[in-house]
Amino acid sequence: MSKTNPARGMRDFLPADVRKRNYVINIIKEVYEKYGFEPLETPSVENLETLTGKYGEEGNQLMFKILKRGEKLQEELAEGKIKSENELSDLALRYDLTVPLARVVANYRNELPKFFKRYQIQPVWRADRPAKGRYREFYQCDVDAIGSSSMIVEAELCMAVSEILEKLGFEDFVIRINHRQLLRGMLEASGIEEKSQNDALVSIDKLDKIGKDGVIKEFEERGITQETGNKLLNLFDKIREIDNAKRWDEKDFPSQTKNAAITNKLRDFVNSNEYGNLGIEDLVKFQLNIEEQSIENFIQIDPSLARGLSYYTGAIFEVVLTKGDFSGSIAGGGRYDGLIGMFGKEQIPAVGFSIGLERILFVMEERGMFPDDLTTNSADVMITIWNEESAGESLKLAGELRAGGLRVLVYPEADKLGKQFKYADSLNIPFVCVLGETELAENKVALKNLKSGEQETLERNEIAGKIK
Amino acid sequence: MSKTNPARGMRDFLPADVRKRNYVINIIKEVYEKYGFEPLETPSVENLETLTGKYGEEGNQLMFKILKRGEKLQEELAEGKIKSENELSDLALRYDLTVPLARVVANYRNELPKFFKRYQIQPVWRADRPAKGRYREFYQCDVDAIGSSSMIVEAELCMAVSEILEKLGFEDFVIRINHRQLLRGMLEASGIEEKSQNDALVSIDKLDKIGKDGVIKEFEERGITQETGNKLLNLFDKIREIDNAKRWDEKDFPSQTKNAAITNKLRDFVNSNEYGNLGIEDLVKFQLNIEEQSIENFIQIDPSLARGLSYYTGAIFEVVLTKGDFSGSIAGGGRYDGLIGMFGKEQIPAVGFSIGLERILFVMEERGMFPDDLTTNSADVMITIWNEESAGESLKLAGELRAGGLRVLVYPEADKLGKQFKYADSLNIPFVCVLGETELAENKVALKNLKSGEQETLERNEIAGKIK
Repeated sequence: MSKTNPARGMRDFLPADVRKRNYVINIIKEVYEKYGFEPLETPSVENLETLTGKYGEEGNQLMFKILKRGEKLQEELAEGKIKSENELSDLALRYDLTVPLARVVANYRNELPKFFKRYQIQPVWRADRPAKGRYREFYQCDVDAIGSSSMIVEAELCMAVSEILEKLGFEDFVIRINHRQLLRGMLEASGIEEKSQNDALVSIDKLDKIGKDGVIKEFEERGITQETGNKLLNLFDKIREIDNAKRWDEKDFPSQTKNAAITNKLRDFVNSNEYGNLGIEDLVKFQLNIEEQSIENFIQIDPSLARGLSYYTGAIFEVVLTKGDFSGSIAGGGRYDGLIGMFGKEQIPAVGFSIGLERILFVMEERGMFPDDLTTNSADVMITIWNEESAGESLKLAGELRAGGLRVLVYPEADKLGKQFKYADSLNIPFVCVLGETELAENKVALKNLKSGEQETLERNEIAGKIK
Repeated sequence: MSKTNPARGMRDFLPADVRKRNYVINIIKEVYEKYGFEPLETPSVENLETLTGKYGEEGNQLMFKILKRGEKLQEELAEGKIKSENELSDLALRYDLTVPLARVVANYRNELPKFFKRYQIQPVWRADRPAKGRYREFYQCDVDAIGSSSMIVEAELCMAVSEILEKLGFEDFVIRINHRQLLRGMLEASGIEEKSQNDALVSIDKLDKIGKDGVIKEFEERGITQETGNKLLNLFDKIREIDNAKRWDEKDFPSQTKNAAITNKLRDFVNSNEYGNLGIEDLVKFQLNIEEQSIENFIQIDPSLARGLSYYTGAIFEVVLTKGDFSGSIAGGGRYDGLIGMFGKEQIPAVGFSIGLERILFVMEERGMFPDDLTTNSADVMITIWNEESAGESLKLAGELRAGGLRVLVYPEADKLGKQFKYADSLNIPFVCVLGETELAENKVALKNLKSGEQETLERNEIAGKIK
């Protein structure tokens, strides 16, 4: 590893990369703003105690912690007084955008509107083992709606995320939806006791990766019988059967019918379990809110969706692509009605979605989904330098053309004209201006089209128009 | 300190803050792009060795260092093996944007154009004692031109920065310019030996704060005689005399004459000193490059300007405001031809400018320089919810209006209509849509103007036009 590389798991973004990232970020911002979400930014560094204990054991381990500062630390170290990591650190890098939001809502409750809708597009840091597509610094694009428990909010969030994905050019996405209360109901109806439910969720979350046998095996290790496990997994099978027809071009089995059929099957399964029925009630309301809208075709009720994070309390979402070989979600979210209460006196309901910018960029790159003009040169014209004495004239002309709305590069030094032309060509700049002795004497400019080779002498005020 | 506050010296930016920050950032980006600068982004976290030793002793102390991870650290701590801070940390938060740029240029030399012009607008972190206007996380807006030693680049950088300040609405700024070689020449001509020159620069840098007596005192502590010190400070006095006429509305003593007079005075002083003459030669070229251009009036040659950072090798700049009580610079920069060579095999010349976003925002806030529409509501219309059953209709209408280009808020739950109206009004949203039973039956919408109180019933497709 050269000493000029970025740190392990971190990336430099050269201009073409930044342009692609900004293209996606701007579409995300634009859609969120149209939905009335407002921008929020929080510091990269949080007090360690703000983050600790919010993400489970894995989160605590993957957090980048910041060393305390000052002479006292040095002294204590020298004296061998410090025996544990916890005494060394007081701050940590942000691990997600949800916990900082919860802190902000608790802190500024009186300054924020009752129903606070915010988006936040910032990096987060996790000391994960770097792998293809997995970085230690990566962006999250979060959107959250604070203050309401109504399923209207879930519907609107899904609409916004789906509009973003469509604007970016995705056609093959599915928004999987499930509900933590419904999950609890399903677990209880299967006979899994409360004390084993969290473990069970962790295993179910891995169903795609470890398969049914893997889940059954993990269940048994955790004291859940094979019979109980099979009962639950058979339910998932049955529902997958209902869903296994391709979602697209499916005229005789439209999604709303499909989702209604799934809901009925789930209702039968949880029977009279109160949590299960609470979850189903929410899912029915959700379906009603999106009825006959284009989003409806992207929604798939998936009772096996579990989501890793422990703070979810209601609906949970995950967005996946159905074509190509990219597995894993490109966005996810859910309702977390308890998190803000951990910071303030008040329990405030909240639900949010996080779009994984890096994964979206990865797939868009693979699929060639970026517009062409993102990767072309960044200047409309280059102005050459005739000699050192007349450089000021070149700079003056540059100022005039910029005032006329052009993006103008000035070659930075006096050099052979041929070399300057070549440089412009190497950057794909279409036009070059020359201010030679004749041109300067006549107060004119020679304009060369590098594509056609054509050259003409023009008045200074004609140049901008000609290039446009 | 409440546990919901941001960490010490860090800030949360609520929506109105973010909008102001983005307003300034967008103007900066727009101007830099017009000058052919391209965006670059580097990771927030760098290898510790990349940053160490680049900023002087103060920089090393103010760096936020990141704790090593993993079990080995825990074991070593428990065994009392770790005696010094250096064994605890392998990474650190970015301290400025210049050193990462130098690393990037050395690393991607073959992928970047020969003359690489980049801008970078990202946060940096310094564990400074927080004070009014001094934060531990703050943004820098850097622009740098790599690959040329020509003073054309210095001229263009000053033009870009001055255009940004003018676009933001500043009229009272001055770009002070000096030159590290000229400084060396002046020190030598005063009789200050090479070994004391760095100390002397540190003291001169504080002239504004500690005054002439303070500088002389510090000089004496460092073995520089009073006579020598006075020789130098008298030069500064004479030049300030030339400059002390107000720069603005000065018909009979225009800046170019003024700067030429100052240059002559400096030439006399350094006499035959080679460094001094190299510096003066650059400043003369610089003046030639900006001759008869609007930037000329903002330029002030200031031989007492020193700049703190040790990596500067040529021209140095600082931008200050001349009216109001804000002291201190709002931007600064200079040439650093040796820094990139610290990372690669090749010495590559470079010069850059850094705009202090936080200071600019502070002054703009004090002076009321933000446009009004930044602080108004973020939605054009709010759609009410009549009841839970018809919420889907409200969401559908929202989709239609958004497709028509409007920013639309949907009230997130069924509630008393009066309460919903009040909420819209509290957010300064001018229009509210109601989809009551009658409207739904007739497939129409009631539109209420909250300012005038007027209400009318319209076809759904008339709404967007009416609001616009």
